[in-house]
Amino acid sequence: MKIAIVFGGSSYEHEISIVSAITMKKVLKNSELSFIFVDKNRILYLIEPDNMKSKFFSSTSYKKSKKLSLKNGAFIVEKMFGTQELSTEVVLNLIHGRDGEDGKIASLMEFYKIPFISPRVEASALSYNKLYTKFLAESLGVKVVEYQHLSKSDERKLTLSYPVIIKPVRLGSSIGVSIVKEESQLEYALDVAFEFDNDVIIEPFIDGVREYNQAGAKSTEWELSIIEEPQKEEFLDFEKKYMDFSRDEQVNSAQISIEIQTKIQETFKKIYDPLFLGSIIRCDFFVVGGEVLLNEINPIPGSMANYLFEDFESMLQRIASSLPKERNIVIDYQYIDSIQQAKGKA
Amino acid sequence: MKIAIVFGGSSYEHEISIVSAITMKKVLKNSELSFIFVDKNRILYLIEPDNMKSKFFSSTSYKKSKKLSLKNGAFIVEKMFGTQELSTEVVLNLIHGRDGEDGKIASLMEFYKIPFISPRVEASALSYNKLYTKFLAESLGVKVVEYQHLSKSDERKLTLSYPVIIKPVRLGSSIGVSIVKEESQLEYALDVAFEFDNDVIIEPFIDGVREYNQAGAKSTEWELSIIEEPQKEEFLDFEKKYMDFSRDEQVNSAQISIEIQTKIQETFKKIYDPLFLGSIIRCDFFVVGGEVLLNEINPIPGSMANYLFEDFESMLQRIASSLPKERNIVIDYQYIDSIQQAKGKA
Repeated sequence: MKIAIVFGGSSYEHEISIVSAITMKKVLKNSELSFIFVDKNRILYLIEPDNMKSKFFSSTSYKKSKKLSLKNGAFIVEKMFGTQELSTEVVLNLIHGRDGEDGKIASLMEFYKIPFISPRVEASALSYNKLYTKFLAESLGVKVVEYQHLSKSDERKLTLSYPVIIKPVRLGSSIGVSIVKEESQLEYALDVAFEFDNDVIIEPFIDGVREYNQAGAKSTEWELSIIEEPQKEEFLDFEKKYMDFSRDEQVNSAQISIEIQTKIQETFKKIYDPLFLGSIIRCDFFVVGGEVLLNEINPIPGSMANYLFEDFESMLQRIASSLPKERNIVIDYQYIDSIQQAKGKA
Repeated sequence: MKIAIVFGGSSYEHEISIVSAITMKKVLKNSELSFIFVDKNRILYLIEPDNMKSKFFSSTSYKKSKKLSLKNGAFIVEKMFGTQELSTEVVLNLIHGRDGEDGKIASLMEFYKIPFISPRVEASALSYNKLYTKFLAESLGVKVVEYQHLSKSDERKLTLSYPVIIKPVRLGSSIGVSIVKEESQLEYALDVAFEFDNDVIIEPFIDGVREYNQAGAKSTEWELSIIEEPQKEEFLDFEKKYMDFSRDEQVNSAQISIEIQTKIQETFKKIYDPLFLGSIIRCDFFVVGGEVLLNEINPIPGSMANYLFEDFESMLQRIASSLPKERNIVIDYQYIDSIQQAKGKA
C-alpha cells in the first residue's frame, strides 16, 4: 500500500513528530512510503526515504528537497519543468500538537479530498483541548478526573487541595506540565503553563495511581491493542521521551483482571465510536477504586502506539480500506432557479 | 481596504452563500472587493465583481473564471503564463454550513497564514454542532433550552413532551428541521432529519416564545449590534429565506426593557470572548419568564447580519485591524541536537 506520512508542523511537538516519522519507517516495512514534511513555516517538502534522519531536519538540509502543494485530490510535486501528482493511496497524519491534532491537517485533507488516517475536524477540536475532552467524556457518561479550569485573566485561586497537576489545555507530551505540592509553587507553575496556552486545567495529582493505556481503531471491526501499564516517572527527561516516540517493539500486556480490562475496552469504544472513525488513537485511563477514569485522549499518539499492536501494518491497511466517507451533498441550483423564476430576472 | 470574500462551498447552504455574497457587494461600497468562489467540487475561482449575479453560478458560467490555489501567505491566481498573488488584506469567510462553519476554511487560512475574519477552528467545531454548543454554553454558565440528543442508531424514544422541534445537529438555515406536534409525526420527522445528519437534537417547541437576535464582535472594543426581534413564521418558504439572506437595510431595535437588553448583551459577551475573537457572529436567544436562554449560535450569519449594525463596513475594518494572532512557536531543534549529542550519532 502507498502511504504518505505527513509530519513536522508548526507545533511545540515538531521535533518529536520527526522522531515518530522515523519510527514509522522502521515499522511499515511492507508499504511504499512517501514522507511529507511540514516545516516550521508550513512549507511542504517531499523527503526522500533515505533522508529520514533527524539531522537532515535539524541541519535544514531538507530545504533542498522538492516542494509540494495541494490541489483537489492530490499533493502536487513541483518539478523543474511543470508539476506531477504524488501517487499515494492514503495519508497518515503524524503531526503531534498544533496543525496535526487541532484539526488543520484533517481540514486540508477533507477540503482537498485526499483519503487520510487521522481524527476528523470535530474529533480533533474536542480531543486537542483537555477542557473540551472533559465535556465530551461527561456527555458520553465516561468518568473523568475532577478538574478546575483557569484562564490567563482569571484570579489564581485554587479550589482543589494539593498536590495538583497543572496542564496547558492544548498541549501534549508533558510540555508546560507541572506538579505542584504546595501553595508556594503555584505561581511559578501557572506562569510556566501560561507561557504555552491561555487556558490551563488543574487536577488533583494522585500519587501512585494506576495508569493504563489502550490504543485502538475501528475498521470493519474493532481493532483494539493490548493494554499497557506505562512506566511512571515524575518527570520525563528528553532521552526517555525520545525513547517513547521511537518505540517500535511490542510490549507486554498489563497484569489486570478481566473485569478491569473489559471496563477499559468498553470505555475506549464509547469514546471512539463514531467520533474518531478513521483514526488510531490512544486513551490513557486511571483506575481508582475499581473505577475507570479517562485521563487523556491522544489523537495522534507517539509513533502511532504501534508497539501496542500485534500487526500494526496490516491494521493500518484495514483502516485505510474502511475510512469514513464524507456525506455527498447535491448542489443543483434549484433554489436560485426558483428565485429567478419567481422574480422573472437574473 | 482590500477584502476577499470566500463563498459557496460543498454545503447544503451553498446557494444562500451566493446570495449572502451578492448582498455584501451592495453593503461594502467603499472597499476593494475580490470574490473567491468555492464550487461544489471545491475548485476555487476568482469571480469578477461584475459577474456577481446568481445566474452566473447556476448556469455554471463561473467555470470560465480564473482558478485559484493556495500558497503560504496568499491565494494564487493561475494565469495563462505563470501565476500571480491575489492582493488582499483580509479574507471574509462567508460560506454557510459545511466547509465554512465546520472549521475547514478557518484551518486553510490559518495553515496558509492568510488574515481572515471568521470563527477559528475550535469555535467553529463547537458552534457548528448544536450538541457541542450546549456543552459550551453549560461550561460558561449560559442557560440553554432543554434538549435530547439522538443518534441514527439509537432507539427512537422521546423523553420530552410534545410539541417538539427536531434539528439535525450540524445544519443551519432550518434545513431538515421539523416541528412535531404528536407521536404519529415523529417517525417521518426523524427520517427527514437523519437524511441530513447522523445526529439530531430534540427540544421542546415553545409556541409564541420571544426570540431576540444579537450580533456582534470585538475589535479593540465591543462591537455590539442592535437587538432584533425577528418575524416568526412556522416555516420559511424559499422567497422569505432569500429575503433573509439578501437583507441590507438596517432594522429597528426590539422593544425590550433595559434589563433584558443588558442580560442579552452580557450573555453574548460571555459566549464570544475569547473563543470567537476574529469573527462576527449572531446569537439567537429565547426569553422565557425573564430568563435569557441561548437558542443557537450562527458562526457565519446570513449576509453577516449587516442589517443589525449602524456602520457595518467601518466595523469590518476595525475587526480586520485587530485579529487574534497565532501563537509564535520557536522551533530550534534543541531537542534533536541533544539526542544526537547524547547518542553521538545522527
